[in-house]
Amino acid sequence: MISFTVTARDGAARAGRLTTPHGLVETPVFMPVGTVGSVKAVGPDDLAALDARIVLANSYHLLLRPGPDLVERQGGLHRFMAWPRALLTDSGGFQVFSLAGSRTMSEEGVTFRSHLDGSLHALGPERAIGIQEQLGADVIMAFDECPPAGAERSYLAQSLARTARWARRCKAAWHPDGPGALFGIVQGGQDLALRRQAAEEIGALDLPGYALGGFSVGETNEQMHDGVAACAPLLPADRPRYLMGVGAPSDLLHAVASGIDMLDCVLPTRCARNGLLFTSRGRLVIRNRAWAEDPRPADEACGCTTCRTFSRAYLRHLFQARELLSYRLNTLHNLAYFLSLMAGARKAISEGRFAAYAAAVRSGWGEEGEVVTCDQP
Amino acid sequence: MISFTVTARDGAARAGRLTTPHGLVETPVFMPVGTVGSVKAVGPDDLAALDARIVLANSYHLLLRPGPDLVERQGGLHRFMAWPRALLTDSGGFQVFSLAGSRTMSEEGVTFRSHLDGSLHALGPERAIGIQEQLGADVIMAFDECPPAGAERSYLAQSLARTARWARRCKAAWHPDGPGALFGIVQGGQDLALRRQAAEEIGALDLPGYALGGFSVGETNEQMHDGVAACAPLLPADRPRYLMGVGAPSDLLHAVASGIDMLDCVLPTRCARNGLLFTSRGRLVIRNRAWAEDPRPADEACGCTTCRTFSRAYLRHLFQARELLSYRLNTLHNLAYFLSLMAGARKAISEGRFAAYAAAVRSGWGEEGEVVTCDQP
Repeated sequence: MISFTVTARDGAARAGRLTTPHGLVETPVFMPVGTVGSVKAVGPDDLAALDARIVLANSYHLLLRPGPDLVERQGGLHRFMAWPRALLTDSGGFQVFSLAGSRTMSEEGVTFRSHLDGSLHALGPERAIGIQEQLGADVIMAFDECPPAGAERSYLAQSLARTARWARRCKAAWHPDGPGALFGIVQGGQDLALRRQAAEEIGALDLPGYALGGFSVGETNEQMHDGVAACAPLLPADRPRYLMGVGAPSDLLHAVASGIDMLDCVLPTRCARNGLLFTSRGRLVIRNRAWAEDPRPADEACGCTTCRTFSRAYLRHLFQARELLSYRLNTLHNLAYFLSLMAGARKAISEGRFAAYAAAVRSGWGEEGEVVTCDQP
Repeated sequence: MISFTVTARDGAARAGRLTTPHGLVETPVFMPVGTVGSVKAVGPDDLAALDARIVLANSYHLLLRPGPDLVERQGGLHRFMAWPRALLTDSGGFQVFSLAGSRTMSEEGVTFRSHLDGSLHALGPERAIGIQEQLGADVIMAFDECPPAGAERSYLAQSLARTARWARRCKAAWHPDGPGALFGIVQGGQDLALRRQAAEEIGALDLPGYALGGFSVGETNEQMHDGVAACAPLLPADRPRYLMGVGAPSDLLHAVASGIDMLDCVLPTRCARNGLLFTSRGRLVIRNRAWAEDPRPADEACGCTTCRTFSRAYLRHLFQARELLSYRLNTLHNLAYFLSLMAGARKAISEGRFAAYAAAVRSGWGEEGEVVTCDQP
């Protein structure tokens, strides 16, 4: 089971230590996404070399393939993917609502068709907890509904009430002495009153950690930043606070400033495969003709393998030629950038200078900023 | 410039030391193929960890993208791809005849259209040498025509005469004091008399090394093995002998037994991307249902990263999910298998027990053998 200690505060920002059965995770932390049990294009040796301490995997994808029974028989997800450090799994709810076909929702849960082969599956609070306990992650998430950004207040309120009932069923199904620490999820869209109510209801369950769900689902960046800033303090101060599915580097700085401890996003890995590199000087589109003969590294301030070894000219060539090595080198760099951004944030918080750190980082990005959108896949 | 010494003989097989401006290459050696300046799915750090000493790159692909002028301005191919060890480039001829569109051949050379964008290019002996000297490889190849397996004798004879004239033009265009040692290529199809004549003509050029071209182009395995065994002794005994584009592990053993020193093939890397693993027990098709829950490594006798770390069950899962990590892990294993097969061959030759080594390796493959065909790409 996990334990969590806040070791430093700097305004609303905080640094902490999350102890898990698979090692120490210093917070605030960014969690690379390993959807089907693999962070795309890199191996566990690479992740360890990048000093990633915790990786996220998606229950929805693992449920469909290879299935939680198989993973359990293989000794659990840590062993299956050869990742000895901490793992967090989501409940599958978000992907059911965003990826799966022909959903039917009831009080019991959701039935849906696999986006892979159309096969029929059912997921609800008890099953979501069961699957995650089979996978054996160190942190597991309650099964919830994540309403779309434009949902009406009446729908939001109904959905929230059901998510609260589902959270209680998750807690009842959960084995507190098992491998996974259960985190509750606070939804509520952009409605602060609903968020407050949800935080009270979910917080009352006295769980090992809490998450904010339903951000970065279509609202503006400003709405997201304001919402997170308003909602993070609603979560119990002595438990880790996880902002789900966020975000770009600027979002990370905002969230950390608001008191968020954990974040995850596909952005560094997905953008890498689309040739977009995050750097200390802002975003760099590697296919840009300007880099065709540029001997400099992608980021002159970066010490990652990619930047230590290869020129922009070569990275551009690999990307233009659709070489597999391109996806790997870009991914290694983007993960290094995100992880080092957070390492810097932790250090700054512990030294009481987080605002200055964030300002210096933003200033490096320059006028263009680093806000990005990144196409599938 | 290179130097070559035969250090041990065992029957027709031989072990040697090829000294290049970019390090020592012990022979017989297998050269991984880095078509566009990247061995697909792995980086130069991986290749060094696998103890690869020399990598092949394709002039045809590099000519089309990013172009030899750009590579030269970037400091040459070694620096561009961050590979400090030896490089060999081919002349581009083979790809012009196998990949490019609407070719026109004359005594001067070949004009062709790029398979990428239809742009028109010309390649001939002088240009092929010029491109390779711009790229800066340690070994460069003469520009030749590689006739198809079924070519008639009259066409073969004409083609050979032209290839011989082209070889003389290559030698005249070559800078012997430059970075690359020029290898001549002996063609002649399945016709031993023509091969003998070509070996005499090309051998008379007194070049630093010699290659057999036109094998593994559609003939049977037996024809190839017999042909190589008959032709290898026709090449000067004090120069490195390179069998181009070959082959599967059994072909490697046959070629080495015949006195071949250098080989290259896309088989280990291409098959890896198609889920075919070469092992000490024969070929392993990783998508096979039989491996779905198999906790064993792909090859229990293999010490590569993939086999030390991951189960067949996980490798199968990655392949089924088309994860990029699948291509990387399979490639690392297959290259480790090919390189270690050749390391074993070198040791066996130096200890005078190559025949026993080859027999033991073949016996491990079992009844099914390891002869494979492997689809594009």
